[in-house]
Amino acid sequence: MQKGKLIATSLGPGDAGLITRKAWAVMQSGALWCYPVRRKGGKSHALGIAERTGIDMPADALELVFPMTHDSEVLARAWARAADKIVPVLQAGRDVAFLVEGDASTFSTFTYLARYVQNIDADIGVEIIAGVPSYNAAAASTAFPLAETDDTVAIVPAGYGLDELDALLPHFDTLILMKVKPLMDGIIDWLEARNLLIDAVFVEKAGAPEERIVRDVALLKGEKVNYLSLMLVRNPNRKRGEVIRGCKKKDT
Amino acid sequence: MQKGKLIATSLGPGDAGLITRKAWAVMQSGALWCYPVRRKGGKSHALGIAERTGIDMPADALELVFPMTHDSEVLARAWARAADKIVPVLQAGRDVAFLVEGDASTFSTFTYLARYVQNIDADIGVEIIAGVPSYNAAAASTAFPLAETDDTVAIVPAGYGLDELDALLPHFDTLILMKVKPLMDGIIDWLEARNLLIDAVFVEKAGAPEERIVRDVALLKGEKVNYLSLMLVRNPNRKRGEVIRGCKKKDT
Repeated sequence: MQKGKLIATSLGPGDAGLITRKAWAVMQSGALWCYPVRRKGGKSHALGIAERTGIDMPADALELVFPMTHDSEVLARAWARAADKIVPVLQAGRDVAFLVEGDASTFSTFTYLARYVQNIDADIGVEIIAGVPSYNAAAASTAFPLAETDDTVAIVPAGYGLDELDALLPHFDTLILMKVKPLMDGIIDWLEARNLLIDAVFVEKAGAPEERIVRDVALLKGEKVNYLSLMLVRNPNRKRGEVIRGCKKKDT
Repeated sequence: MQKGKLIATSLGPGDAGLITRKAWAVMQSGALWCYPVRRKGGKSHALGIAERTGIDMPADALELVFPMTHDSEVLARAWARAADKIVPVLQAGRDVAFLVEGDASTFSTFTYLARYVQNIDADIGVEIIAGVPSYNAAAASTAFPLAETDDTVAIVPAGYGLDELDALLPHFDTLILMKVKPLMDGIIDWLEARNLLIDAVFVEKAGAPEERIVRDVALLKGEKVNYLSLMLVRNPNRKRGEVIRGCKKKDT
């Protein structure tokens, strides 16, 4: 018998309109839906995006618990448990659609899950459907060009600190600062000292219905922002080196 | 009368399945399709993606010529001409769907076009629909995790040279090297010298039907690759600093 495929079904950052046609087709293909939660019975962002399309969660959809922790042993146990749950379904020939917020290759746990599944049964195929990352949705909402011709872009969890940002700034036209929450005040001071306040925009829950945009980021000083917050920063002062260019063949 | 909206309709990197549901709806909304070409009557990548869905190009679809040049005066004239063509349509109340390959905020000329349009008529609204960037599709095709928890990612046109890559490498878990064509041999030597050949993958025309993946990138030495080529490089040796973490509220 043909085994089922494990399909990373990227749903984009929150807007049901940003689900790709391919992910949308998989959702309706009869594949078993799986969705991640932080604890048993908890809310799932990914499932929420799927439901916002207007189609109901299939009765047999499967919740997979991945605790919010950086403890690698706890995580390993969670991935192993999740793999144990879905491998029999795959071996019985049914596809499994693992619903992923954003893009499955970007800050997602899908890679780990796939590894555990293929460790149990190497014959199980894995397909990854790419999705729209949250910061691309944030850029679209704010008409913020992430990259123009020959621009450089860094995607950096803000938690590495302001010294790291200072090290990177000269090299990049755009900084995408992820998870800015714990460092908001420091980042605002950092931007101010470098005259970059005007080149920054703050986006909370990019692409989701509750998306919040703050262009005057200094207003956020002292405010506790949501965990799902990022900042886009343009650096108008990057000194560009010479660019070695390829030649595009005409009309190809 | 209500003016039409200029809609950046991101179509993703090439696979018609990676068009978002929102872009798909705009394509069928009666909005005027516009698509970029390099020269009059030339081939349009963006239009090709739209046509791969199986729907025909509307008879009134409008070609906009943006020459392949870095001459800013030539480009400015092209944007001005394009804006002149579509502003009357918008002013007459019809939406205009500018078809964009990949994501409209990432290495796209949409920002410029929108600026020229709003310079002519500041009342015209602009909407940007985010799309899947080519490197996310490349990551999905190759099961290459662009970013795991707390990872850092740099998106860099390879043309800035190998010294620049050396400067960035210690800071990043993943390098996304764009437009690798003119520097292929140098990059291969660079990867080899740093023991990174095994952590790199080459993708030509990511997400398009002609997508080509080369995992043993050393095989490409001396080969002339396509202009639309990128390389994904994992850096397993990044020394991580301490990460300052936010606390995610439970179940939000």
